[in-house]
Amino acid sequence: MTLDPDRLFPVENATRSVARDLYSRVEALPIISPHGHVDPSILVEDRPFSDAAELFIRYDHYVTRMLHSAGVPLDRLGIPRVDGSGEQVDPRSVWRIFCENWHRYAGTASGYWLATTLSEQFAIDDAPSAASADSLFDRINTALKTPEFAPRALFSRFGIEVLATTDDPMDDLASHRALAVDSGFSGRVIPTFRPDAYLDPASPGWTHRVETLAAWNGTEAGDYSGYVEALEGRRRYFIDHGAVSADHGVLRPDTAELDAGEAKRLFDGAMSARLSAAEAAVFASHMLLEMARMSVDDGLVMTVHAGVLRNHDTHTFRQFGPDMGHDIPVPTVFAEPLRPLLTRFGNAPDFHLVLFAVDETVYSREIAPLAGYYPAVYAGAPWWFLDAPDAVLRFRAAITETAGFYKGSGFIDDTRAFLSIPARHDMSRRLDASFLAGLVRQGRIDMASAERIICDLVDSLPREVFKL
Amino acid sequence: MTLDPDRLFPVENATRSVARDLYSRVEALPIISPHGHVDPSILVEDRPFSDAAELFIRYDHYVTRMLHSAGVPLDRLGIPRVDGSGEQVDPRSVWRIFCENWHRYAGTASGYWLATTLSEQFAIDDAPSAASADSLFDRINTALKTPEFAPRALFSRFGIEVLATTDDPMDDLASHRALAVDSGFSGRVIPTFRPDAYLDPASPGWTHRVETLAAWNGTEAGDYSGYVEALEGRRRYFIDHGAVSADHGVLRPDTAELDAGEAKRLFDGAMSARLSAAEAAVFASHMLLEMARMSVDDGLVMTVHAGVLRNHDTHTFRQFGPDMGHDIPVPTVFAEPLRPLLTRFGNAPDFHLVLFAVDETVYSREIAPLAGYYPAVYAGAPWWFLDAPDAVLRFRAAITETAGFYKGSGFIDDTRAFLSIPARHDMSRRLDASFLAGLVRQGRIDMASAERIICDLVDSLPREVFKL
Amino acid sequence: MTLDPDRLFPVENATRSVARDLYSRVEALPIISPHGHVDPSILVEDRPFSDAAELFIRYDHYVTRMLHSAGVPLDRLGIPRVDGSGEQVDPRSVWRIFCENWHRYAGTASGYWLATTLSEQFAIDDAPSAASADSLFDRINTALKTPEFAPRALFSRFGIEVLATTDDPMDDLASHRALAVDSGFSGRVIPTFRPDAYLDPASPGWTHRVETLAAWNGTEAGDYSGYVEALEGRRRYFIDHGAVSADHGVLRPDTAELDAGEAKRLFDGAMSARLSAAEAAVFASHMLLEMARMSVDDGLVMTVHAGVLRNHDTHTFRQFGPDMGHDIPVPTVFAEPLRPLLTRFGNAPDFHLVLFAVDETVYSREIAPLAGYYPAVYAGAPWWFLDAPDAVLRFRAAITETAGFYKGSGFIDDTRAFLSIPARHDMSRRLDASFLAGLVRQGRIDMASAERIICDLVDSLPREVFKL
Repeated sequence: MTLDPDRLFPVENATRSVARDLYSRVEALPIISPHGHVDPSILVEDRPFSDAAELFIRYDHYVTRMLHSAGVPLDRLGIPRVDGSGEQVDPRSVWRIFCENWHRYAGTASGYWLATTLSEQFAIDDAPSAASADSLFDRINTALKTPEFAPRALFSRFGIEVLATTDDPMDDLASHRALAVDSGFSGRVIPTFRPDAYLDPASPGWTHRVETLAAWNGTEAGDYSGYVEALEGRRRYFIDHGAVSADHGVLRPDTAELDAGEAKRLFDGAMSARLSAAEAAVFASHMLLEMARMSVDDGLVMTVHAGVLRNHDTHTFRQFGPDMGHDIPVPTVFAEPLRPLLTRFGNAPDFHLVLFAVDETVYSREIAPLAGYYPAVYAGAPWWFLDAPDAVLRFRAAITETAGFYKGSGFIDDTRAFLSIPARHDMSRRLDASFLAGLVRQGRIDMASAERIICDLVDSLPREVFKL
Repeated sequence: MTLDPDRLFPVENATRSVARDLYSRVEALPIISPHGHVDPSILVEDRPFSDAAELFIRYDHYVTRMLHSAGVPLDRLGIPRVDGSGEQVDPRSVWRIFCENWHRYAGTASGYWLATTLSEQFAIDDAPSAASADSLFDRINTALKTPEFAPRALFSRFGIEVLATTDDPMDDLASHRALAVDSGFSGRVIPTFRPDAYLDPASPGWTHRVETLAAWNGTEAGDYSGYVEALEGRRRYFIDHGAVSADHGVLRPDTAELDAGEAKRLFDGAMSARLSAAEAAVFASHMLLEMARMSVDDGLVMTVHAGVLRNHDTHTFRQFGPDMGHDIPVPTVFAEPLRPLLTRFGNAPDFHLVLFAVDETVYSREIAPLAGYYPAVYAGAPWWFLDAPDAVLRFRAAITETAGFYKGSGFIDDTRAFLSIPARHDMSRRLDASFLAGLVRQGRIDMASAERIICDLVDSLPREVFKL
Repeated sequence: MTLDPDRLFPVENATRSVARDLYSRVEALPIISPHGHVDPSILVEDRPFSDAAELFIRYDHYVTRMLHSAGVPLDRLGIPRVDGSGEQVDPRSVWRIFCENWHRYAGTASGYWLATTLSEQFAIDDAPSAASADSLFDRINTALKTPEFAPRALFSRFGIEVLATTDDPMDDLASHRALAVDSGFSGRVIPTFRPDAYLDPASPGWTHRVETLAAWNGTEAGDYSGYVEALEGRRRYFIDHGAVSADHGVLRPDTAELDAGEAKRLFDGAMSARLSAAEAAVFASHMLLEMARMSVDDGLVMTVHAGVLRNHDTHTFRQFGPDMGHDIPVPTVFAEPLRPLLTRFGNAPDFHLVLFAVDETVYSREIAPLAGYYPAVYAGAPWWFLDAPDAVLRFRAAITETAGFYKGSGFIDDTRAFLSIPARHDMSRRLDASFLAGLVRQGRIDMASAERIICDLVDSLPREVFKL
């Protein structure tokens, strides 16, 4: 499991050599992570990670889903049930299950990140296996107790300049405030406004959330204007705490422009549970367009993650809650659903709308043409299942010929797995180098352009797109 | 038309060399063919094939459709009309038409298999053409009269260990029984339960088929419980004759769970032709879920082939019947339609559900995420039009990064063309070697892993997935 | 910005060498352009192009959309508003904006064509930039004043044998007539019948167009038979002026066969504005099938361009009219919508139906299977956003394994940008050479076949498909 210094580069020698050269220009640049799911409290508390299973397995549903697909019940991985009834599991046994199934990760993105992390961070070159499981567990645990593996030390060692988290609109952002005033921490950790559950009346608990918003705002829960005002207020609160973007996860990116009376009528209906499913969807579509309007006003970058059917396995969802690895993509479209939003705001100055998809058919068909026309639209980096070497190269090939390199978002790691951050960004830099090297060798761009582009992709583009 | 020993391997030398090495480990392994359409009577009878046109053209709708696309009427290929009115055609003239159109097959999967078969089995290295047609016809016919070309001799020479056929639920499986008791034949030829036409009330002749089932079961045709019982009984009959799987071909893989009363009500409506198209579809969806329930109970692997609009050209269908090369794929989805089935059985122990598609967008979007989560789900090998070198590599690239190598079905030849079986399996082995060689050369897996994986793909995986 | 003589060829040396060899066989063949959007009056008038901005930017919405996506208002590019209110803009400043944004075109198809054209036609090897903008503008303008850059001189220098334009059915084709009788011009410039706006009652101005048709035909506007007869008559007029094809742009390629009474009823409803949107769509579907019937009768090749949502940005459309770069593709299907048409005419002798798509999922899923069965169907070359190096190779890989090389349309440039024609055809030839070289090196076809195929792709195939 020794790392190939030329990993992910094209196999042909001359092209590989160009890629190596391009990569060397960005290899050591700081990491900008404008969207992800790391829990900021780990940096506030700066406590050592407890063990290898907690660090690499329990909270990484990319990893646990693969073990589940091999027939390992989630209970045996120490994942707690929502009713608290789960058994206690020895972390060492969780780690052992993982090691016994290591061959299942061969060729996967998770396997690549895990191998890179074990090798680079822990100097481990034995592949995980039944035989090596215990010794690897011990070695990792020993390392985790050293100061070098405290979260802040890792943050610094990884060269992270900006790390964005994803947060509930009513979150008090205490962790972000604590880090901002902590003289012992110089990193930039910023929140992201994620209001889905406050916008869609079909979302369980929506009425309660609207009441919470109203209470904070000092208005009546049934007052539509107060509701909108509260959302605007919470966005300002996030901006005051460093936020640069608002993120929106939707099954289908429908948008609709309602007049004030109609919006109010649907809001009233939703609050009194008198809305049909179709009407609720129209209201949610209206609120997505409202979010764009607010972004135009307050400057938050709008990111849209569309096309995932959440919690596909109903029984497992009831037992273990969300984010257990069974969110499944569905066919996605952008052009028609976003038309009301884009006709209204697609040309608005300084409005940035970043589109992410897990249905890759949308890359060449809709995202590139939209990003290649509307000033507001940027093509989001490959998301989720597509955040993997071959898929990233397919993304580049599908997007670039229409939209070029300068209407993309830059790399987004979107991860909960803190330790995988450097491996993911490094993967992206190697793949950009590989893609550009191919263009250079085919005479499609010159080397000077490639050198400029790779630096822009890693550095200036994410700063520009996310207004950092 | 001499065969390149390095055919299908990557062009870059070092990668080609790795591929060659990996291929050498599986080149000679026995052929496991767990799903296909060879007629088992050819092995029972063991009569010589009559001529080159019968062997390569008349029954291979991959081959005839291409000639049809060039304007050759199916009559001229000797394909009989359903009303028996077709003209008699000299096989030599059929073969000549094929040879004159050989350039049309360049770059196609059929062309590759045909070239490989002609070269490997018949030592022919003249390309088919108007000039070579007659001499090739004669050479092939001479060979076919030798004992080496009798079906059983070929079965043995091809190294086929298991060959599955596809059969009507009411088939008496006489051929399979005859082969099983024949001391002169040591191969394993197993039936597959294919009940589509018994499950969907919209299928022509459904009522009659239900009556046949009931008659066999000794129950009333109008008795829903007897209908279900009869299907269970016929599955047991197939299992007793060696079946390991049940196969389901559907336009859309909808599943639904009805309570007993509702199922009975729809069944009654279907039997008395009082069902709307929508109700018939709901009943068929219910029966697909019932098939999963039976698989959970009796252990038959459930395979689903979805997304083909059968018999697109209505006139040709009326004249020549089904399987004439104009079944056309349509957009396919799995995540939502299969949700009822997977929520109920996706985690059932020892349940295997193999998903096949001809809309390749579903590979990275739905099949890999489903196979990478549900223990029951396996990604079926590229099917039909996608069973070709570039498409197979796209499949591997689309599936592996999410689901790895161990949630795939292994190669499936799915062929009616008995002589093409070795060429197809050899193609798959070469492509697996090529794909793995790329990963090795890019530092994504090590050589030891690649060596293990290629053996598993060819040998252990199909045995495990199909419970062989 | 010097052109690599091996541009677009595969990077591996031996494969590159094969590609170079294949390319050399077609490099200098004449250009056949059976579908495009060049204005024929430029050849009639043969006036020098006025300046670099007019030539490369103002009329090329591939180029302007990218500048728009960077935030440059269309006004600043000198694009006139439909109400005539636009400001006058100095062409030099338009050119300067383009040069300042040259990095945005890196890796795009437009960037590749522009670089090739600047280098090959103007011997420019300085990349466009803020620094080089003025001197490039001057150099280009100087060249444009020389006789070598007059439109007819370029037509001849480019080696164009046939150039098809796209024309309104009521166009008098005066330019085509003028060119045909002009003894000073020996090229073949032919019209294409494009009747969309006359077939779909939902098209703005439809009633007026029907009246124009009727007036020409000497029948009543409200007479359905006269309407059909007029369309037949205008097709004959086009045929008499050299037309070989009729082109149809539709959002969805629905076809329907109505009996005469029903067609007449819908026509009457449409003329008196009493038709629902659904009924209008049925009538348009019927007329698309009628167009196929006429093609069967009069021999015009039928081309269908499907799946583009036109004028996505409503505000820009109102200000600047159509073709401003915001036509956005949507998911496209062919198999079901075309079934009525193909069941009726798919096997009609000498009927040619060429299918173009911008949703590339349809290539392997529907277009290749349809072209690989129906004699009438040909796979149209990659269209619009997909007319770019990587996309073209994806097209070849997706189509060839099912439909081979001989059911494709040959290359279609489909361009308004006269000067880009040689660069586009050259790109296609290089890519065909590259794709074939890969097959040769992988032992999938032999060199003699590849040599035959590349000549057929460039020369005989477009002649055959478009009956030239």
